[in-house]
Amino acid sequence: MKIDRYSKSSITGKEYIIPDQLDDINGIDKFLEANKSKKVIVVQGLGFVGSVMAIVCANSDYEDYAVIGVDLPTSQSYWKINSINEGIFPVISSDKNVEKFFKNSIKNNNFYATYDTYAYSKADFIIVDINLDVHKNDEHVTKDSKINFSVDLLPFKSAIKSIGEKCKEDSLILIETTVPPGSTKIAYEIVKECFHKRGIKLDKLKMGHSYERVMPGPNYIDSIKNFYRVYSGINDYSAQHVESFLKTIISTENYPLTRLKNTNATEISKVLENSYRAMNISFMVEWSRFAEEAGVDIYEVVNAIRMRPTHKNIMLPGIGVGGYCLTKDPLLASWSRKDLLGADLPLSMSERAVQINDNMPIFAFNFLKKVFKNNIEKKEIFLLGAAYAPDIGDTRYSPVELFYSILRNNNCKIYVHDPYISYWEELQVDIESDFRNLTSTLDAVVFTTGHNSYRNNDQLISILMNLKGLTIFDTIGILDEETINLLSSKHSVKVLGRGDI
Amino acid sequence: MKIDRYSKSSITGKEYIIPDQLDDINGIDKFLEANKSKKVIVVQGLGFVGSVMAIVCANSDYEDYAVIGVDLPTSQSYWKINSINEGIFPVISSDKNVEKFFKNSIKNNNFYATYDTYAYSKADFIIVDINLDVHKNDEHVTKDSKINFSVDLLPFKSAIKSIGEKCKEDSLILIETTVPPGSTKIAYEIVKECFHKRGIKLDKLKMGHSYERVMPGPNYIDSIKNFYRVYSGINDYSAQHVESFLKTIISTENYPLTRLKNTNATEISKVLENSYRAMNISFMVEWSRFAEEAGVDIYEVVNAIRMRPTHKNIMLPGIGVGGYCLTKDPLLASWSRKDLLGADLPLSMSERAVQINDNMPIFAFNFLKKVFKNNIEKKEIFLLGAAYAPDIGDTRYSPVELFYSILRNNNCKIYVHDPYISYWEELQVDIESDFRNLTSTLDAVVFTTGHNSYRNNDQLISILMNLKGLTIFDTIGILDEETINLLSSKHSVKVLGRGDI
Repeated sequence: MKIDRYSKSSITGKEYIIPDQLDDINGIDKFLEANKSKKVIVVQGLGFVGSVMAIVCANSDYEDYAVIGVDLPTSQSYWKINSINEGIFPVISSDKNVEKFFKNSIKNNNFYATYDTYAYSKADFIIVDINLDVHKNDEHVTKDSKINFSVDLLPFKSAIKSIGEKCKEDSLILIETTVPPGSTKIAYEIVKECFHKRGIKLDKLKMGHSYERVMPGPNYIDSIKNFYRVYSGINDYSAQHVESFLKTIISTENYPLTRLKNTNATEISKVLENSYRAMNISFMVEWSRFAEEAGVDIYEVVNAIRMRPTHKNIMLPGIGVGGYCLTKDPLLASWSRKDLLGADLPLSMSERAVQINDNMPIFAFNFLKKVFKNNIEKKEIFLLGAAYAPDIGDTRYSPVELFYSILRNNNCKIYVHDPYISYWEELQVDIESDFRNLTSTLDAVVFTTGHNSYRNNDQLISILMNLKGLTIFDTIGILDEETINLLSSKHSVKVLGRGDI
Repeated sequence: MKIDRYSKSSITGKEYIIPDQLDDINGIDKFLEANKSKKVIVVQGLGFVGSVMAIVCANSDYEDYAVIGVDLPTSQSYWKINSINEGIFPVISSDKNVEKFFKNSIKNNNFYATYDTYAYSKADFIIVDINLDVHKNDEHVTKDSKINFSVDLLPFKSAIKSIGEKCKEDSLILIETTVPPGSTKIAYEIVKECFHKRGIKLDKLKMGHSYERVMPGPNYIDSIKNFYRVYSGINDYSAQHVESFLKTIISTENYPLTRLKNTNATEISKVLENSYRAMNISFMVEWSRFAEEAGVDIYEVVNAIRMRPTHKNIMLPGIGVGGYCLTKDPLLASWSRKDLLGADLPLSMSERAVQINDNMPIFAFNFLKKVFKNNIEKKEIFLLGAAYAPDIGDTRYSPVELFYSILRNNNCKIYVHDPYISYWEELQVDIESDFRNLTSTLDAVVFTTGHNSYRNNDQLISILMNLKGLTIFDTIGILDEETINLLSSKHSVKVLGRGDI
C-alpha cells in the first residue's frame, strides 16, 4: 500500500505527518485499561457511516461499550484518526445530535481512534464500514452509450483479511458496507483461511450482514439509531448473535428488526432499495423531457398521479442523482450478477438507470444553453447549492459537479453558494457563504440544490428582485408558482420539467 | 370499413345478423321522446370502459340523463348493442353494482344502445370510450431484441370525424380513451374541419380530456364513480364545462377533481401512471431473476424493503403483465414522443419495460421446463387461473395466454380453471369450473392467477394433498409459507422468485 506522508483535515485544514513507524499498541492498551470490563466494539472505516456508527455505539442506551474506530494511515484518512482523538469530529452535520453524541463519548472516554490493526485482537464486535467503490468510464455521460464500469473487490478483501488475521476466535464480524451480493460469503471464506493458518477453529466466530440506511442531514443519528434494520447471519448461530448485538444499538422496540434467510438476501435488499430509487428517477428523467417537449408541466402531472396510493413513490425530476449510493449501487448489483454469480445477463434496467441519471446535468446544461441561444461562452453564473441533496453538506458525486465543470469548460465565470459547505473538495473551489456576489453583472442564477433555506427565502427573493433582468433557472423545482410569477415580472424564469421552453 | 354479417354474443352465445340497411333514427327518436327534457349523453364505444361509464351516467345522483351507447355494427361489437337493448349487460362482473345500475337504467328507460351516428346530433355530451390499440411485432418476446410496434391513429380519427360531422354546435366532447399524448389536439382539428365544412362556428363547442381509472373487478362502478379524476380542456371555457359535467357523474365532494393546464398534460398523466407500474414491474423481473440465481427469496426481501414509506410501491414479481393498459400505454407514449412530437429519442426505459414484461411468461415456462429437466413434452398440466389479474374475468393480453401457448407447442395436455371465466376467447379454449380434473395423472399444477379464492382454499389444498407426488408451481407468490411446507411434504413445490431452484 502506498502511504503518503501528509494528511490534511478537511474540517480544520490542519496537516498531519503520517509516521513511518505505525504502532499504536500503547494507545489502544491505555484506552482499554481505562475501559476495563466493557465489551469492545471496533468500527472499521471512519467515513460518513463508520464515524457516526461509532458514536452511536459509544452512546448505546443498553450497554456500556468501549468503541475503537480504525482507519488506514493514508493521506485521505489519517487526519480523521487524529481529529477524533483531538476532540474534533471528522464530519460536519446539521444534526445537533452528532456533536452531542461525540462530546458525550469524550466525556465518558469510551471512544478512541487508531490505524493499528492490533485493535481487532481486542474486539468483541467488529463492524465493517469501509467504502467499496465502482469505477466508471465516463463515456456514457456524454455519448448515449452503454455504461462501462468495473468493481475492484481487493480493498474489501484485504480489509477483511486484516480482521481475520487478528480477531478473537469468538468475535462477531458485522458487515455494514454496501457490497456486491455474495461478498459476505467471500469474506467468510477469507476469515476461514486466516483461522486455518492461525490454527484456530471457526465454530465460535460469528459473521453477519446488516446494512445501514444512513441519511446524512438533520436526522443523521436517528437514521441509524431510530430506523428499521434488516440483517442476516452466515449461519443461524451468527444471525442470533447479530440480532442480540443490534438490539443494544438500535431502538428495536420501535423499529423492529427484520431477519432475512441468508447474507445474499440482505446484500441484495440493500442494493435493490437504492436501485429502486435510481431507476424511478431515471424513468422520470425521460418522462420529464417528454413533458418538456409536449409543453407540459411535469410537476402538476406528478402531483395529480400521487393522489393514488399505488403511485405515491413516483419521483420528480431534477438536475441529477448524486451521493455515494444511488450512483453506484445498481452497478454493484449488476456486476455481482455477472461476475460473482456467473449469470449471462446484467441488470439491464438498473445499468441503464445509472446511465440516464449520470447524463442529467448535461441535459440541464443544454437547457440553459438553449435559453442563451447557444451563446453561453463567458456568461457569469451564480449557482445556488453544491450538495447533491437538500440540507446536507455532502458533495460526493454531486450532479452539480458535472454541471459546474461544463460551465467552466465554456469559460463561464461561476459563483457557487451553499450554506453547508465552505470548500468544494472535488473541484477545489471556494464556496460563497453569502449572497454578496448576487449582482447585476450576472447573466443567470441557477437553483442547483433544493436546500430548504432557498425555499421562500425573502432575503434571497428581494436581492433577486433588485437585480436587472437575468435568467433564473430552477433545475430542481424549488420555486413555487407565486415566486415564479413574482420573479417573472423582472426576469426570465425557466424551470426544468415545467414545459416552458 | 369491412362489415361482417354476423355478430356473436360472448355472454349468451346468441348470434345476431348485421342488417344491410343501417338506420336507427326511429329507435333513437322514440327513446328520446320518452326522455323528453332530459340532457342527452352519448357514449361512443361499449367496451369494458364505455358500457360501464354509460350506466354510471344513467345512474347519476345529480342529473336525470338520457344515455345512448353507440358502437360499430361490426362482428365484434354489434351484439353488444342488441344485448343492451334486450336487457343483458355485455360485461360480466363480480361487482354487484354493475347489474344493479344496469337494471335501474332499464327500469327508468334512460339507457339505449345503437350503431347509428344520428345519435351524436342529439347529444349534449359525447364521451369517447373507444379502443386505441398498439400493434406489436412479437419478435421481442422470444429474442432479446428491441420492441417493434406501430400505432394506427386512423380508427380514432374516424371516430372523432363521425362525431364532428353530426354533433351539435354547443356539445361537449369528452375524450376518455387512452391516447398518445397530443391526440386531443388532433381531434379538435378534425372537428374544426368538420364544422368548417358544415358552415358552423366552433366557438360554442367544448372539448376536453379526462381519463378513467377503471378497474374491472369487485369495485368496477366505484373505480369510476368514487375515485380521483384528472381533467383538462382544449381551452378554459371547455375545461370549465368538463368540470361541471364531471361533477354530475363523479362523487367529487369525496374525490376532488384535479385540473391540469392542457390536454397534453392529462394525456401524459394517464400513460405515465401506467408506464410507472409497467416499469416498476419490469425492474423487479430482472431483480427476481437475480435473486433466483443468488438463492434469495425475493418476497422476503421486498417485504423488508416495503417497511420504508419511500419504497412502499416496490412491486413483486409474477408470471407477467396483462390487461389492456400496462401492455401498451408505455408504447403509446413513446410513439407519441417520436411520431407526434417529433423528438429524436423514444422513452427507452418504458419501451424496454414492455419488452421485459412481455418476456415473463417465457421465463416462467423455462423455469418449469428446468424443473422437468428439460423433458416437458406431453406433460399433463393443470393451470389455476386464466385472467391477467386477481378476481377479474378479463383475459385480454393475459400473460397466461403465452404460457399456455408454449405448453401447447410442447404438446402438453393442459387444463385451465378459472372461477370467473367459462370460455377463453383468445385461445378458444373451454375453462374448467371445478377441480374434477385435478387428478393423479397430472405432472404439474401451476398457480397462474392470484384469485383470492385460490388463497388458503381448504378444498383445493385437500385435493392437492390427496394426489400422488407432482410438481406444484406457484408463479405469482400466492402460497404462504405454511401451505408451502404442507404441500412440500407430498409434492415438489416451486415458487417463482423464492430462490428455490
